[in-house]
Amino acid sequence: MRRTKFLLGEEDTPTHWYNLAADLPGGPLHAALNPATREPLTRAEMAATMPEPLIDQELSTAREIEIPEEVRRVYTLWRPSPLIRAHRLERALDTPARIYYKYEGGAPTGSHKPNTGIPQAYYNKLAGRTGLVTETGAGQWGSAAALGAAFFGMTAKVFMVKVSHQQKPYRRALMETYGTECVASPSTRTAVGRKILADDPDSPGSLGIATSEALETAAGDPSLGYVLGSAANHVLLHQTVIGQEAVRQMELAEDHPDVVIGCAGGGSNLAGLAFPFLGARLRGGRPVRIIAVEPAACPTLTRGTIAYDYADSAGLGPLFRMHTLGHGFVPPPVHAGGLRAHGIGPAVSRAVEDGLIEATAVGQVACLEAGVRFARTEGVLPAPESTHALRVAIDEALRCREEGRSRTILFGLSGHGHFDLAAYQKYAAGELTDGEADSHGLALAAAGIPGARVA
Amino acid sequence: MRRTKFLLGEEDTPTHWYNLAADLPGGPLHAALNPATREPLTRAEMAATMPEPLIDQELSTAREIEIPEEVRRVYTLWRPSPLIRAHRLERALDTPARIYYKYEGGAPTGSHKPNTGIPQAYYNKLAGRTGLVTETGAGQWGSAAALGAAFFGMTAKVFMVKVSHQQKPYRRALMETYGTECVASPSTRTAVGRKILADDPDSPGSLGIATSEALETAAGDPSLGYVLGSAANHVLLHQTVIGQEAVRQMELAEDHPDVVIGCAGGGSNLAGLAFPFLGARLRGGRPVRIIAVEPAACPTLTRGTIAYDYADSAGLGPLFRMHTLGHGFVPPPVHAGGLRAHGIGPAVSRAVEDGLIEATAVGQVACLEAGVRFARTEGVLPAPESTHALRVAIDEALRCREEGRSRTILFGLSGHGHFDLAAYQKYAAGELTDGEADSHGLALAAAGIPGARVA
Repeated sequence: MRRTKFLLGEEDTPTHWYNLAADLPGGPLHAALNPATREPLTRAEMAATMPEPLIDQELSTAREIEIPEEVRRVYTLWRPSPLIRAHRLERALDTPARIYYKYEGGAPTGSHKPNTGIPQAYYNKLAGRTGLVTETGAGQWGSAAALGAAFFGMTAKVFMVKVSHQQKPYRRALMETYGTECVASPSTRTAVGRKILADDPDSPGSLGIATSEALETAAGDPSLGYVLGSAANHVLLHQTVIGQEAVRQMELAEDHPDVVIGCAGGGSNLAGLAFPFLGARLRGGRPVRIIAVEPAACPTLTRGTIAYDYADSAGLGPLFRMHTLGHGFVPPPVHAGGLRAHGIGPAVSRAVEDGLIEATAVGQVACLEAGVRFARTEGVLPAPESTHALRVAIDEALRCREEGRSRTILFGLSGHGHFDLAAYQKYAAGELTDGEADSHGLALAAAGIPGARVA
Repeated sequence: MRRTKFLLGEEDTPTHWYNLAADLPGGPLHAALNPATREPLTRAEMAATMPEPLIDQELSTAREIEIPEEVRRVYTLWRPSPLIRAHRLERALDTPARIYYKYEGGAPTGSHKPNTGIPQAYYNKLAGRTGLVTETGAGQWGSAAALGAAFFGMTAKVFMVKVSHQQKPYRRALMETYGTECVASPSTRTAVGRKILADDPDSPGSLGIATSEALETAAGDPSLGYVLGSAANHVLLHQTVIGQEAVRQMELAEDHPDVVIGCAGGGSNLAGLAFPFLGARLRGGRPVRIIAVEPAACPTLTRGTIAYDYADSAGLGPLFRMHTLGHGFVPPPVHAGGLRAHGIGPAVSRAVEDGLIEATAVGQVACLEAGVRFARTEGVLPAPESTHALRVAIDEALRCREEGRSRTILFGLSGHGHFDLAAYQKYAAGELTDGEADSHGLALAAAGIPGARVA
């Protein structure tokens, strides 16, 4: 029988996280800055909200960082995740390409986010903190933080963007089932939230606002650890279990990807899958193209500026050097909530800047079309975020057909879409538009980047 | 590292389905009857809605029936499913028991139903039919039939109980994404539906009504195959891939279940997991208790009558000898929609009648409490149906603690609960009741069983 799945046993769960910083040809990443002084953020400043081991990981240039045994044990509940050859999709596309996908939807919360939710909870618990606080947009990350808190006996408070809090009651209910308090943001719980509500009682919220509320809450209570779902170096690091497994699974398949494709919001799913392949290439291994796919509604890598900017809208947190659309940018309400980030993780940004990773932006209508096609041929219904990688994978496969040549394509299927059927309903009803970011809005937001004011 | 997961490779996907009829000590199952003549249903009569190979399987007494290669290939997309040792739950319960669960939630539709949706679509396609028609309650089965139709290039029409059609728009959207037409039942598409709507325009529908509509539709169009999600012998047969895998996985775990627990509505998940263990026992293998768990709202095995009765409410289909509450019984609207069946599969019924399987009924509040506990310790959020098996597994484990002795407990986790968060929300809000079936309603419904009228 032809092989479809390439599985690893729980004993093959990675023992270390892989750190791209060790292999970047242009030297270390730019430091994050204290927003008041614009000096590099010190460890002492970071320690206000983060435990030591996570600070170590955030700043590390070591290639490998050991995964604690207790974290690895939890990983084995759903890891290693399967690598699947999409034979049925290949046949439907009539392509000579070989298409593989790395499927993270089997995690308890249905996406890759627990890969970092678990270790962040673990290290905060170890540091004596009794609760976690964070922000979430569509809720994938909030669910994963809630799971981490439940597993390590901690409380959790999640500020959820108000419009999602209203539109996605099931994601909220999942967090609450794990024991988490889920607060619609902007809220009256924080000074930031109260100020925004005073100005606009009907504010739908944004990820930047929710982040400001979470940061303010964490800063006011030393028993709470602030955790985050993407962008930061240590978060990207935790996700590299995905790519390390995929490297071994491609070997089992006796194949090697010519191209690795991931969707990109904060960048953690892309980095998790692609960095181990990229690192091997940088150390003299086989060539591989990496493609980051973002929504046309939030074109951070393809239309953003490389500059120091805030991750949160109120400017409470540090400045990161990254591709950014401006911390005031509010993307159109596309269904890939997890990709609506104005800035991207500095390590992904740097890899794009250095020409190591390509970037492209696609509209959500074409993505959902790809999602329907995938469901009907491969069965799994992809999350709207994941359809961005899928869309480009299909386009690559169709190009192979046109060119009459085979290529090996690997894409990240970051989560299932069982919480996202509203998007598929709207697509089926013809009610979906791409919600492309307009140039005027982009220009306005770019003018708000701190570097832009200085220049 | 201690073992948590017991995995099989795709090459270990079962090659045959296991047929309990070959091992029943009391001889063959009672035949289904033609409702007009009360004579055993003939092959010719069955052929009106079913292709030959499925009729063969329905009537077979062979122990093993080969799985077609094309079906097995599709199975390998998500099979073999994992067997997981619930170490974290054991620790939380402080029990000496060893608890394992067989997890079917990784299937594309999130439950075990595609195990039969795929072969039923395959055989109907092979017989030249171009479309499928069926009924569904909560939608797990409808999604699986939709998946089967999509995979074999067929149309599908699913009559969905109207109250679920309204309450579970996401399940409906999943079917529609697979390309299926999903019709709220009772509908104006059938004579049965029109008659019911004329009497009661606001009828919320029932599984029995939806079944009558599907049967009428299939009978009127030879291009359509009627398919069904539980109860029938061939459906139970298809689900035995679950138990066959579990038998091998328990061997890998170097353990053997003292008790196997499954939730029971039509009986296919229970049978799928338990029949291979039961068959081995009947052939002289190790002892094992089997427990069927049904909702107190629909206590078919524990409070029903063993008699010939219809599976559908209008009496269009054949009569089956089974535990039944009466085909007119409408169970209270508990959240385990998949367990709201007035009758149970004849093979399960017979095994209970012969004392080979025990039965118990539990209220949904205690089930949801178990579901929350499981989510917080093991991560996976169980479907409300699955929480019935889980509840009894936990109770068995607590009994082990009281008795100070270890037992090996295996239960079926038939699906994830990501479509069922409304149930968890209501549980958290304290708005859930057990909705226990009342004696007056049970007596009324029992009086409607054909045998009851004859007697």
